[in-house]
Amino acid sequence: MNQNSSAEPRCSVARSLQVVGEKWSLLIVRDAVWGSTRFSEFKEALGVSSDVLTDRLATLVDAGIMERRTYREEGSRERTSYHLTEAGEALRVVLAAFNTWGDAYRPSGFGPATLYREAATGEEVSLGFVTAGGRPVARERVEVLRGPGSLLASA
Amino acid sequence: MNQNSSAEPRCSVARSLQVVGEKWSLLIVRDAVWGSTRFSEFKEALGVSSDVLTDRLATLVDAGIMERRTYREEGSRERTSYHLTEAGEALRVVLAAFNTWGDAYRPSGFGPATLYREAATGEEVSLGFVTAGGRPVARERVEVLRGPGSLLASA
Repeated sequence: MNQNSSAEPRCSVARSLQVVGEKWSLLIVRDAVWGSTRFSEFKEALGVSSDVLTDRLATLVDAGIMERRTYREEGSRERTSYHLTEAGEALRVVLAAFNTWGDAYRPSGFGPATLYREAATGEEVSLGFVTAGGRPVARERVEVLRGPGSLLASA
Repeated sequence: MNQNSSAEPRCSVARSLQVVGEKWSLLIVRDAVWGSTRFSEFKEALGVSSDVLTDRLATLVDAGIMERRTYREEGSRERTSYHLTEAGEALRVVLAAFNTWGDAYRPSGFGPATLYREAATGEEVSLGFVTAGGRPVARERVEVLRGPGSLLASA
């Protein structure tokens, strides 16, 4: 049986990649986390063509990851800005996972570009597996199992 | 200043996407986690063309995420199989982040396709931020900061 050749895959990795898997999409979300809101800001930061950026922003808006708002500067016409929704903010976990992996296995030689801290205490945090009771579990001790949404009975 | 237009970005998200950002790459890693090792297994599970699969596997091998081994079945010529390296196994955190996000924001309606459990106890685990001391911190309480590898002094 084939989980991915159908139009609507059940696997949440595949379903996520349908909306953020195209080139630039996650980097747009990353820049939004860092405060970019305007088309020109994304364009300059990413060095991407206007056509591609327009397409990716539309996909992110359609998927409920970003939302359009309008703003007007003194003497200018109304313009559109782009903001992360709650679903978009939740993608920070995906970005943090890439930060964790990239810092370990694709190091730039300059140290981490991004640090994660608890806002209230300034204490550094990292991404890991935890039980519902809040007990951390090392990645090597975690196993993956087919869940109810899987099309396959076993691996 | 522009972090991404240079040939070698410093951001670990961008650096990670250089090697796993192309379509199918993360789904190949996912299938490898589930036990696929042979070209024909990946091809059948993903429904991808041989040319694209060959290209993606080569990129993953070059990046040190997968490694080639040879095997020979009774009466057949020697063939190549593909296995996750330690760097590839570590990508489970990225897959888990996509599972977490996708189950919450792109639900299939059938429940999670993948569950994560502590092997020793069978206790369910999920991905989250924890302090070095092992204290879980909710995503909403986590802030991102430019690290030493950032090209930008501030957001």
